[in-house]
Amino acid sequence: MALYGGIEAGGTKIVCAVGSGPDDMRAEVRFPTTRPEDTLDKAIAFFQEQSRSAEISAIGIATFGPADVNPSSPTFGFITSTPKPGWANADFVGPVQQALGVPVGFDTDVNGAALGEYRWGAAQGLDTFLYLTIGTGVGGGGMLGGKLMHGLVHPEMGHMRLPRDRHRDSFAGICPYHGDCLEGLTCGPALQAHWGVAAEKLPPDHPAWELEADYLALALHNLVCILSPQRIILGGGVAQQPILLPLVRQKLQTLLNGYVQHPAIIDDIDTYVVAPGLGNHAGVLGAIALAEMATRNTE
Amino acid sequence: MALYGGIEAGGTKIVCAVGSGPDDMRAEVRFPTTRPEDTLDKAIAFFQEQSRSAEISAIGIATFGPADVNPSSPTFGFITSTPKPGWANADFVGPVQQALGVPVGFDTDVNGAALGEYRWGAAQGLDTFLYLTIGTGVGGGGMLGGKLMHGLVHPEMGHMRLPRDRHRDSFAGICPYHGDCLEGLTCGPALQAHWGVAAEKLPPDHPAWELEADYLALALHNLVCILSPQRIILGGGVAQQPILLPLVRQKLQTLLNGYVQHPAIIDDIDTYVVAPGLGNHAGVLGAIALAEMATRNTE
Repeated sequence: MALYGGIEAGGTKIVCAVGSGPDDMRAEVRFPTTRPEDTLDKAIAFFQEQSRSAEISAIGIATFGPADVNPSSPTFGFITSTPKPGWANADFVGPVQQALGVPVGFDTDVNGAALGEYRWGAAQGLDTFLYLTIGTGVGGGGMLGGKLMHGLVHPEMGHMRLPRDRHRDSFAGICPYHGDCLEGLTCGPALQAHWGVAAEKLPPDHPAWELEADYLALALHNLVCILSPQRIILGGGVAQQPILLPLVRQKLQTLLNGYVQHPAIIDDIDTYVVAPGLGNHAGVLGAIALAEMATRNTE
Repeated sequence: MALYGGIEAGGTKIVCAVGSGPDDMRAEVRFPTTRPEDTLDKAIAFFQEQSRSAEISAIGIATFGPADVNPSSPTFGFITSTPKPGWANADFVGPVQQALGVPVGFDTDVNGAALGEYRWGAAQGLDTFLYLTIGTGVGGGGMLGGKLMHGLVHPEMGHMRLPRDRHRDSFAGICPYHGDCLEGLTCGPALQAHWGVAAEKLPPDHPAWELEADYLALALHNLVCILSPQRIILGGGVAQQPILLPLVRQKLQTLLNGYVQHPAIIDDIDTYVVAPGLGNHAGVLGAIALAEMATRNTE
């Protein structure tokens, strides 16, 4: 069985792992995301060490963004316009490929997580589904007609605009670009700024969750109308609050109001909006899945 | 050169045509959409008559919805839950295929129009773009990664929800399901209900257009964030008001606020949000393009 390396690159930490799937993860290391040269050196050293005991066929990188994920672009594999020191216009794929000499897959963290869920988790057998993460930020990716979502650049679903009742909620939102877009209202730091308490410390009966569910349900309503996904997976730290998912499902049904007449939504909402099948490992397993796909793409 | 038949099926009228593309349209007929058996009889009679002089290789149907466009479904080719008399659960593809004995392509009117624009119009060379129509209703389709948009059912983009300032605009919207969703606010009948004047009679300096452009720009903002299309085509009768397109482009740039850093949006917005290249013929040429694709799919 072929062995792959995965790099889950977040804005604050990097997870590197070697394995072939969820039941065969052989080694894992985590370290803070510092400047790109140091970070990539550490990741490369880990994979070089690991490949002494067994050959690694390919590397997959599931990264924070914005990133150039278009294989025909001259800057494919680069991080683009991030404020993170040293990472703006930094080549991520090039150094890894040169040092390790294997195919390198590269996509956004959310497309990686979506691919992992498709391969081993909650999206097996589907061809059109979304993976949305509600955590430090809000992002979305997925597969449409069997292909990972790409376009002009890549989706930035966290920045969609939603209707709001400002008499009920006058919080201005924290997005530096759009104020009260989806991310500006619902990510972890937005909850912290709004209520003065970290998201993980807000009790289940706090009014924050009702409002959070309202905004997420509106976002899902828009995603259903625009893309008609077969399933929506809600990942990320904020989405782990147990009362959130049932609230979002019920509010989504109310919002759609019977318009989309499909049993998946009318009768089976509990299997339509779901938690990630891979739990907290969706990220790094997504990177492993990107590596596996990179091997197939170069065959 | 192979010859195709196209059926553009709208809620009020049907257009049937025979040709091979925009420069070779040989015959066209239009009649009101009455009950399915009468309507299909007329369409079939037209194509039988036409096929006496030259062989028709395939038929394409670009239809109003909701419709079952999933080729692996037992009710593929059916109209589904429409209130239109006789059309609920009516088989559209079956009778046409049986009478004419050729492959029949079947998709939504907006996916058909998108395919026509891809083949001969404003989307040539792209693989990820949207076609939005603002007319009697609001609908959207398009291509993602080179495939027409399908999913659980098909997109219903007209029903996305948008932020609103109700102090500025207290109109309740006309959508029977959602009130003030995109379609409920911006389609032709919504403009008529809001301002008491038919959309085509509203003068260019009427405040309706500024508000219409605000809502459409918000919808496009969401589509850009969710799908990252390479281009957005705005068709339909309401979008033909000449001042609308420039207003929408400018407001979309303001809303995105530099977040999506791509020259297509920052520098070339005039070629990013465009009118259909096929003008009023996008519909029936889309049906012809669906026929052409049906031939390829059965080869």
